[in-house]
Amino acid sequence: MANEKVTLAHGAGGKLSRELMDEVILPAYGNPVLNELHDGAAVNMSGRVAFTTDSYVVQPLFFAGGNIGKLAVCGTVNDLSMTGAVPRYISAGLIIEEGFPIADLRKIVETMRRMADEAGVYIVTGDTKVVERGKADGIFINTAGIGDIIPGTDISPKHVKPGMKVILSGYIGDHAAAILAGRHGLQLPDSVRTDCAPLAGLTQAMLAAAPDIAVLRDPTRGGVAAVLNEIAEASGCGILIDEDAIPVHPEVQGVCDILGFDPLYLANEGKCVAFVPADKAQAVLEAMQANPYGRDARVIGEVTEGAPGQVGLRTSIGGIRVVDMPLGNLVPRIC
Amino acid sequence: MANEKVTLAHGAGGKLSRELMDEVILPAYGNPVLNELHDGAAVNMSGRVAFTTDSYVVQPLFFAGGNIGKLAVCGTVNDLSMTGAVPRYISAGLIIEEGFPIADLRKIVETMRRMADEAGVYIVTGDTKVVERGKADGIFINTAGIGDIIPGTDISPKHVKPGMKVILSGYIGDHAAAILAGRHGLQLPDSVRTDCAPLAGLTQAMLAAAPDIAVLRDPTRGGVAAVLNEIAEASGCGILIDEDAIPVHPEVQGVCDILGFDPLYLANEGKCVAFVPADKAQAVLEAMQANPYGRDARVIGEVTEGAPGQVGLRTSIGGIRVVDMPLGNLVPRIC
Repeated sequence: MANEKVTLAHGAGGKLSRELMDEVILPAYGNPVLNELHDGAAVNMSGRVAFTTDSYVVQPLFFAGGNIGKLAVCGTVNDLSMTGAVPRYISAGLIIEEGFPIADLRKIVETMRRMADEAGVYIVTGDTKVVERGKADGIFINTAGIGDIIPGTDISPKHVKPGMKVILSGYIGDHAAAILAGRHGLQLPDSVRTDCAPLAGLTQAMLAAAPDIAVLRDPTRGGVAAVLNEIAEASGCGILIDEDAIPVHPEVQGVCDILGFDPLYLANEGKCVAFVPADKAQAVLEAMQANPYGRDARVIGEVTEGAPGQVGLRTSIGGIRVVDMPLGNLVPRIC
Repeated sequence: MANEKVTLAHGAGGKLSRELMDEVILPAYGNPVLNELHDGAAVNMSGRVAFTTDSYVVQPLFFAGGNIGKLAVCGTVNDLSMTGAVPRYISAGLIIEEGFPIADLRKIVETMRRMADEAGVYIVTGDTKVVERGKADGIFINTAGIGDIIPGTDISPKHVKPGMKVILSGYIGDHAAAILAGRHGLQLPDSVRTDCAPLAGLTQAMLAAAPDIAVLRDPTRGGVAAVLNEIAEASGCGILIDEDAIPVHPEVQGVCDILGFDPLYLANEGKCVAFVPADKAQAVLEAMQANPYGRDARVIGEVTEGAPGQVGLRTSIGGIRVVDMPLGNLVPRIC
């Protein structure tokens, strides 16, 4: 495009909006459903359908291992996956600040397409708005998604029972550490990168191994601590996890030590916590470890009858401390 | 809530996020599907499903006859309606600027609920993010929606044929005039108010009268001029409309005369343009006029074989001028 910055006219529904669509967005997202270009997409669905949405306001927009577009697709793919659905179709609503470089926009929408391809979804409908300089922060992205809930699954905290195992799919805190490093200009090893990834294949493998998995959750904002507290409260059970079982990369632990964070509260964008009947735990673990995004999966604890509604952590030195629900002011704009 | 302003912690996924949900958002949206509160909603759908999204960045947030929440629900309800669908479920993604008054947020989400009730949809899933002061502009809202496409309908510009009638559901430019008045502090009569309304009932009545309606479109950004140009281009037909047939309130024409706008290019949020086989035009008109949002419906022109891809306007004095596609810089942040 001759003009290398996004202007207000690109968001106003006329010729320049069309140009932005035709030259930047459609070539990136392009697929048979989107290309019909109605006011909305028409797709075939049947039975139980999962429907979810998230807005992404992460800062910085580009960070180690990803960008806001990667988050926007993976986040909604993962929310659908955690309801026990096969993600099918995604929408993309862009709110762009006037003056945003079109080269950056291209990188973001191309990443969205790559992630959509990996997750097996189409981006079928979208919208682009532009606001004046100083009225947004580069770009915000909303994605919504629909997917087919796998017949026979019924993901709900009400199915969580004492004795169930709590499984975590891998190392925690990588996403938050990558964002913090990007934001504060910390020099970290290349190994500290966002874990952002589409987990649809992982959760489908898990549900194939055990259709009676009670709960699947991705520990994003608020981290593993928030997910466990929500499930403890919703199920009325207690949850006891082992500190030594929770995998944290040493570099991430280092960032936490410097900045005073607890990795349990840090956001992840490519991890899954599962509540699994004890007799299925081994089968689920094996299914996870066979998937690139579940290689480091392990049992981190179990559901208890005692301490209903509470989350306890058995520490390395043998004590037990309560893991509280985060207040919520740990790391703003993490996703 | 003790705290009367939205803070960053309200968007961070912890206790304060829950408090905002429990005290402000859930009581407003509350419905049986939303109240299950998973990562996503689970709903029953079958057959052809319409899926659409829009982000809303209108400024000012409150204006004559509505607010951003009204637009956000009606806009997506209308996009679904224009694909020939019965709107069913809506998502709501809020991006809020730190410091935004919680009283204003309450008004907005309560309006969203009222509009959802009128349109017969549930708000079933959502997300709230908060960004620092100066990094957004009060509040931005994204809605996505899904609906059941009415069997037997096939809305597509490829069905537009010479001889079809072009029907407009009522007076144009009211929404843009209300926004312009609000933005520039113009003193206008109370009668100048947004036309924002959910059109699901109107379009269903139209499709019941004539399932073979070729195209339904809501003339939002870019106005009637943009819609007609898009359909002319996509169908390869010409379109000829009569200036005298197009209803414009005198006060709106007055705003246009002062500010140098042409009402054909002004955004509407509760209007519909339909392309209808000539022998069904009367039946469709009667169905529209029986609906409160189609009372002033009329035929404004027809599809021609001549001038393919072009839109012509037969003026009051008998000439014909070309109606171009808007460039797109007329009124930023109109929706």
